[in-house]
Amino acid sequence: MNTQITPAALLALSESSQNQTIRSFLSGSHSVEVAETVSSLPVQEAWNVLSLASPSLAAEIFSQFDLPYQVAMMDCLSRRDAVQLISAMAPDDRALLFKRLPAEKRDMVLPALAQAEREDIRALTSYDSDSAGAVMTSDYATLSPGMRVSQAIEHLRHVAPDKETIYYAYVLGSQRMLVGFVSLKDLILASPSARIEEIMHREVISTRVDDDQEEAARTIQKYDLIALPVVNEDGALVGIITHDDAIDIITREHTEDIEKFMAISGSHETGVYLSTPALVHFKNRASWIVGLAALGLVSGVIIHRFEATLSNMIILALYMPMVADTGGNTGSQAATVVVRALALREIRPGDFLKVIFKELKISLLLACILGVLSWGKVMYLSHDTVIPLGVSLSRIGLAIAVALSLQVVTATLTGAILPIAAAKFKLDPAVVASPALTTVVDITGLLIYFMTARLILGV
Amino acid sequence: MNTQITPAALLALSESSQNQTIRSFLSGSHSVEVAETVSSLPVQEAWNVLSLASPSLAAEIFSQFDLPYQVAMMDCLSRRDAVQLISAMAPDDRALLFKRLPAEKRDMVLPALAQAEREDIRALTSYDSDSAGAVMTSDYATLSPGMRVSQAIEHLRHVAPDKETIYYAYVLGSQRMLVGFVSLKDLILASPSARIEEIMHREVISTRVDDDQEEAARTIQKYDLIALPVVNEDGALVGIITHDDAIDIITREHTEDIEKFMAISGSHETGVYLSTPALVHFKNRASWIVGLAALGLVSGVIIHRFEATLSNMIILALYMPMVADTGGNTGSQAATVVVRALALREIRPGDFLKVIFKELKISLLLACILGVLSWGKVMYLSHDTVIPLGVSLSRIGLAIAVALSLQVVTATLTGAILPIAAAKFKLDPAVVASPALTTVVDITGLLIYFMTARLILGV
Repeated sequence: MNTQITPAALLALSESSQNQTIRSFLSGSHSVEVAETVSSLPVQEAWNVLSLASPSLAAEIFSQFDLPYQVAMMDCLSRRDAVQLISAMAPDDRALLFKRLPAEKRDMVLPALAQAEREDIRALTSYDSDSAGAVMTSDYATLSPGMRVSQAIEHLRHVAPDKETIYYAYVLGSQRMLVGFVSLKDLILASPSARIEEIMHREVISTRVDDDQEEAARTIQKYDLIALPVVNEDGALVGIITHDDAIDIITREHTEDIEKFMAISGSHETGVYLSTPALVHFKNRASWIVGLAALGLVSGVIIHRFEATLSNMIILALYMPMVADTGGNTGSQAATVVVRALALREIRPGDFLKVIFKELKISLLLACILGVLSWGKVMYLSHDTVIPLGVSLSRIGLAIAVALSLQVVTATLTGAILPIAAAKFKLDPAVVASPALTTVVDITGLLIYFMTARLILGV
Repeated sequence: MNTQITPAALLALSESSQNQTIRSFLSGSHSVEVAETVSSLPVQEAWNVLSLASPSLAAEIFSQFDLPYQVAMMDCLSRRDAVQLISAMAPDDRALLFKRLPAEKRDMVLPALAQAEREDIRALTSYDSDSAGAVMTSDYATLSPGMRVSQAIEHLRHVAPDKETIYYAYVLGSQRMLVGFVSLKDLILASPSARIEEIMHREVISTRVDDDQEEAARTIQKYDLIALPVVNEDGALVGIITHDDAIDIITREHTEDIEKFMAISGSHETGVYLSTPALVHFKNRASWIVGLAALGLVSGVIIHRFEATLSNMIILALYMPMVADTGGNTGSQAATVVVRALALREIRPGDFLKVIFKELKISLLLACILGVLSWGKVMYLSHDTVIPLGVSLSRIGLAIAVALSLQVVTATLTGAILPIAAAKFKLDPAVVASPALTTVVDITGLLIYFMTARLILGV
């Protein structure tokens, strides 16, 4: 960090071939910061800089770039350079890149890799992109049960440079079955002559390779793990997911959740706002918005049904938006709280009745306050609005207030029920949160509004 | 995990005083799972179970309970038990609990603690609850620069049982100044006779004790750290934040963000949905909802201003909700994307113009599609609606479509501008996202709607 340099200065150094200065910049700072500076340059210029580093340092910096930038840079490289770079990358980073490379690039690079690397890439890229397998790495340290502690430490020292973490080492039985683990702390504390099987933890928290990766990340969070072993259906160890992956998975899931809340589709895992073209943003947003507009047809039909009511009593039209908005807001709040509680495992679909009961209480309180407020609003705002003979303003205010209160209760319960129902049917609860919810609640709100008006005002 | 037991079975064991079986359950499973089972019992019964464990195991299990449960249990304990339990807790967990204890409980326990513990609690509880200081622990391992590697490993082995992590050890100069760090991996790989100052990393990524804790968590995420050292204004080491804290901080920030999006106030850091009383849920939700209802007065005034227009041309009233909803949806989408991009540091307030330009392009595309659709909707739904003489339905459809398109562009830009402006003034961008945004956009939408109708239809 003491060798800070701007992208412009770096470009100038590169153009005047001050390779020694560039090399000391590349190796003198943290790879995260070097990558930030280098990736501000166009890919070809960035590669000119990066190619001055040793293959392993180049691969370390390259892995910090975001994926679209990595893919773009691969396009500039000769086959030799590409193969050298990919060979030096960590297995999990390499697999993620491979999934994004165009087929011709993959076909160009794969045959030139060593067989072990080829097989590793094939294995790691074969899993579903939401699964634990898709984010695991094959760079883990293993021990055998019969080793002595001193041998184990010697072994870890030997393999350390190539492993993602040596703080946990996994103990494998026959057929790579995961039978236990030891932490480096355990090894340091144990007697050097003890056998691994005597000191290892036999109850290993692990995840299946086809489990959801968010589930795996939450397990790492729950048990405060540095790494979580991933096993196949036979219980054989196939990879690990490390604590830093868990943070990234949780952050990504959160972005997806919040985008579902706002009806934005499409994968944003590579999405960096500014580098995503406007047309892609448009596509991600349009599908839902257009869908909601189509659903809005139903509201339109309902409103038209009650056209006569509205033209007889124009004051009802004036308060239509208020009822719709309030229903949308209270429903979204309930949905948000319930979706979040489901995500954090605070509630389960089985808690259905408890949730409904609690939301009912909350919504009754909200309904009272908002009902009174809306009655006051009608009395204050509409004191000189034309109303039909034979109906008093306070009676109209009452009808609007009752409708609004009913709508608050209905919308809150709908907001709570939809996500739980979605979870019960193994759908993502966030999808049914607002604005999809808002649109549904609009429809129920209009029906409630006109029915109440009919009952109380006789229109 | 091989000694699974239900809460009911545990209670039965406790009532029949089968202490040996209970002890083997307490020590035989992961403390996270034991804590889940034990905390299903009422606090007094839970304490009867927990008191059978050794003080250190009891403290470990106790620390896994959520805070309200910890506070409730403290209420059942004798002074002696409370002091013993608190002494055995990790400093960061202890400090968090202390902040929640009622004053009389604190005053009862504090004098009975050892002086070092008292001072540690005072130091850790003195920081602002959003700061890095509030989540750090004082259980870190330190080395001095002149130590040999072999001495350092011996030292770490000696202190390991009491430290949160020994995988990073911090090297301190005079006055506890942080001068470097070494990982246990570095130590294992180094020659035993090398001096720490020869192998330590001198560029330490650290955070200030009064920095925001989300910032600290993002630093841990960015650099894939196991722990982040926390220094005071003089550069002296005062604590560390570990990777598992970072995940919890990020998860908590996510929840707060998403609740701000949906206008839910109040602190949820201890909030577990089902154990939070309905009245608290109500309070958290009501303040904003009532505030929004008050803001809705402005929309009400605008609608009343154009009451004559609406009664002359009732068809305009029918499409008022559609324009408001669509504006709210598109505005919320833009706000969501921008708030998220700000949170993930993909954009900065300085990117203002770039963001506006991109959102302008996106909104124009959305405006075209939605404009055409709304025109079709009017033509299809309103073919037999009564309209004043001298105006054609297609002209009314045109006015509605133009108003909707203008509203989509305005709402999208407003949704993008408000969060960036909030960030510029050091406010939280999420607060101005929907539904606050929806309410603002409702007002602009109504103005646009009636102005457009006046211009195109002359009403």
